[in-house]
Amino acid sequence: MPIAISDPDDPRIDAYRAVRERDLLGRESRFIVEGEVVLRVLVRQARFPVESVLLAENRIESLRDIVDGLPNAVPVYSANRAVMDAIVGFPIHRGILAVAKRLALPPATELLAALPARALVLGLVGLANHDNVGGIFRNAAAFGVDAVLLDATSCDPLYRKAIRVSVGGVLMVPFTRSPSASEMVADLQTAGFDVLSLSPSGRETLGAVRPAPRTALLLGAEGPGLPAALLARTRTISIPMKSGFDSLNVATTSGIALHHLSQG
Amino acid sequence: MPIAISDPDDPRIDAYRAVRERDLLGRESRFIVEGEVVLRVLVRQARFPVESVLLAENRIESLRDIVDGLPNAVPVYSANRAVMDAIVGFPIHRGILAVAKRLALPPATELLAALPARALVLGLVGLANHDNVGGIFRNAAAFGVDAVLLDATSCDPLYRKAIRVSVGGVLMVPFTRSPSASEMVADLQTAGFDVLSLSPSGRETLGAVRPAPRTALLLGAEGPGLPAALLARTRTISIPMKSGFDSLNVATTSGIALHHLSQG
Repeated sequence: MPIAISDPDDPRIDAYRAVRERDLLGRESRFIVEGEVVLRVLVRQARFPVESVLLAENRIESLRDIVDGLPNAVPVYSANRAVMDAIVGFPIHRGILAVAKRLALPPATELLAALPARALVLGLVGLANHDNVGGIFRNAAAFGVDAVLLDATSCDPLYRKAIRVSVGGVLMVPFTRSPSASEMVADLQTAGFDVLSLSPSGRETLGAVRPAPRTALLLGAEGPGLPAALLARTRTISIPMKSGFDSLNVATTSGIALHHLSQG
Repeated sequence: MPIAISDPDDPRIDAYRAVRERDLLGRESRFIVEGEVVLRVLVRQARFPVESVLLAENRIESLRDIVDGLPNAVPVYSANRAVMDAIVGFPIHRGILAVAKRLALPPATELLAALPARALVLGLVGLANHDNVGGIFRNAAAFGVDAVLLDATSCDPLYRKAIRVSVGGVLMVPFTRSPSASEMVADLQTAGFDVLSLSPSGRETLGAVRPAPRTALLLGAEGPGLPAALLARTRTISIPMKSGFDSLNVATTSGIALHHLSQG
């Protein structure tokens, strides 16, 4: 049975207080999930321990199967809309929130070593926009990417907006940080990955690439792209476009490339 | 020489007043463009008549080539940031705005008849989200789509946010409205187009499609997808995804499909 919360100041739901301000401050070892689709991914994947769930009263019935499937130790709180909005700090239309624990990020070498002989990995370099990182993880989940490596300047995939845009993809695809893009490439090459860098100046076109059993695809930010030093150490791939047009969005680019590479 | 505006109530810049409110009310025969990249597309394409330009004083120097290239009859106004923000109604960071005239939309049959023997057309059905329509036009411009048809329930590509997300793509790719999705398909088929409908339940996979000289691709909204009646009258195409994952974003889907079809 959900635990009814009627006082917005109830300390049991502290983790849900002032959601937007906490987005900026960070939640240390926790992250927050919104909406039914992403909550279902969180529970089904069972990769991240769920700490608690907070539901608007009118959502309990339709989520009965999730609530009943959670371990007994995980509290499910419920509140009416006014109390929930007061806790969260803004109108939370979907009325579904959960708090989960982050996992310790393994060294990239360890994550790569655990992958199968046929594997497809993404490497994100300088991707600081949560929409783009969320969109890339959505595509990574859709095309069965085995792991994502992020350099130190890319943003947090477990930021609330990135999770939402990924439609739960960040909860499905294993990821970790590389200390630098240079070490990322070195680790991938040592682990037997053919490293492809997407770049408008790429020497090969995507459509002509036949992926190796272990293939990694590097993506850089839309403006600056990938650093020249990385391009020099990898196979550079371009997506042919009509002349005179600027560029594709990086999340769209990831979808195009993953569709091609996952067919190979 | 730009015309300096120092009074936010100056009637000459009425078209720039209260930009966000006017987004909702509509601008009748006009639309508004923001930022350097899109303004350059607007001027370079010369499809839509520019009515006026409003620049923050500190942007004039870097846009001198555009200002000098405009017809003499097109007024270029300048204002300092405080006056510009007061006119527009919110802080307009990029300090670059223009107002242009819409074109009358031709009947779909007329637009299709004017296309070359080899042509790639997009048909949008029920796409009410400006981000998605903007993203689709960005991809359409990148892959050289010849025309876009929109059904009556799809949103306006010349809405301010759609233009911005398209990075000017909506100013490059000709588009018009079809009275209904059903008439859209009929017009495409009469004009000799092989009509492909993207759908998770599609009978062929995208990677196996060899595009006909005249190919049209129909896209529907992410939740409902394309109506069954349309699927029954067209070739249905799916993008294979990892089982258990929901779906791709429709703009990403358009990029994946256009990349494949434009290689054929």
